[in-house]
Amino acid sequence: MKSLGKHLLAEYYRCDENAINDVQKVENALVKAAEIAGATVIGKSFHRFEPYGVSGVVVISESHLTIHTWPEYGFAAVDVFTCGDHVDPMKAHEYLKEVFGTQNATVETILRGVLNIPDLRHKPGG
Amino acid sequence: MKSLGKHLLAEYYRCDENAINDVQKVENALVKAAEIAGATVIGKSFHRFEPYGVSGVVVISESHLTIHTWPEYGFAAVDVFTCGDHVDPMKAHEYLKEVFGTQNATVETILRGVLNIPDLRHKPGG
Repeated sequence: MKSLGKHLLAEYYRCDENAINDVQKVENALVKAAEIAGATVIGKSFHRFEPYGVSGVVVISESHLTIHTWPEYGFAAVDVFTCGDHVDPMKAHEYLKEVFGTQNATVETILRGVLNIPDLRHKPGG
Repeated sequence: MKSLGKHLLAEYYRCDENAINDVQKVENALVKAAEIAGATVIGKSFHRFEPYGVSGVVVISESHLTIHTWPEYGFAAVDVFTCGDHVDPMKAHEYLKEVFGTQNATVETILRGVLNIPDLRHKPGG
């Protein structure tokens, strides 16, 4: 089935609490994950909450990565939404899962923009 | 079932092509949608692609909203991820659907962070 985008919804359980509470570490990890997936980073926004938790997004030419962490539960919710054929969102997920010391993870892939259009393309001429 | 977050994945078909191709209009709409949902905006990042298309994210205290548009197909993919009980992601979706002149929409709600923890709370003491 042809779609405009692939959206991975990942849940990370029993993560390293310090890793997912460190806003700089989380930002670096998401940017690196985007690069590992073959994506081009064009924007980002990360925030640290008190007393704990991090939220952040990386906008890529091919859509986005987001993360929300609950260090108190060792939990993080990660999304990797990519468009086009030259990026592999699963690579971003595999890297992030490792870097956060995740002991259990689930991942679900949802196709976005499944349009009934012959020769569906992510980018004009692309 | 108690969860840390509620994640709406919405697909907008047959949108107003000009509305979803105007980066300022799209940014204003997402910020307003966040406010209508009862959320607090803490960051944003929006980008216009050539020859068309917009990608953007709004980080809120309660997680995020994202959008990716394909004006050439009249299509937009919208995510509204919220945590806590005082925000209503469906209100954001209803507003966005209207403002983009969407003629067909689908929306799916996925619970994020369903943890087997008694008295699960989004924020400590919250």
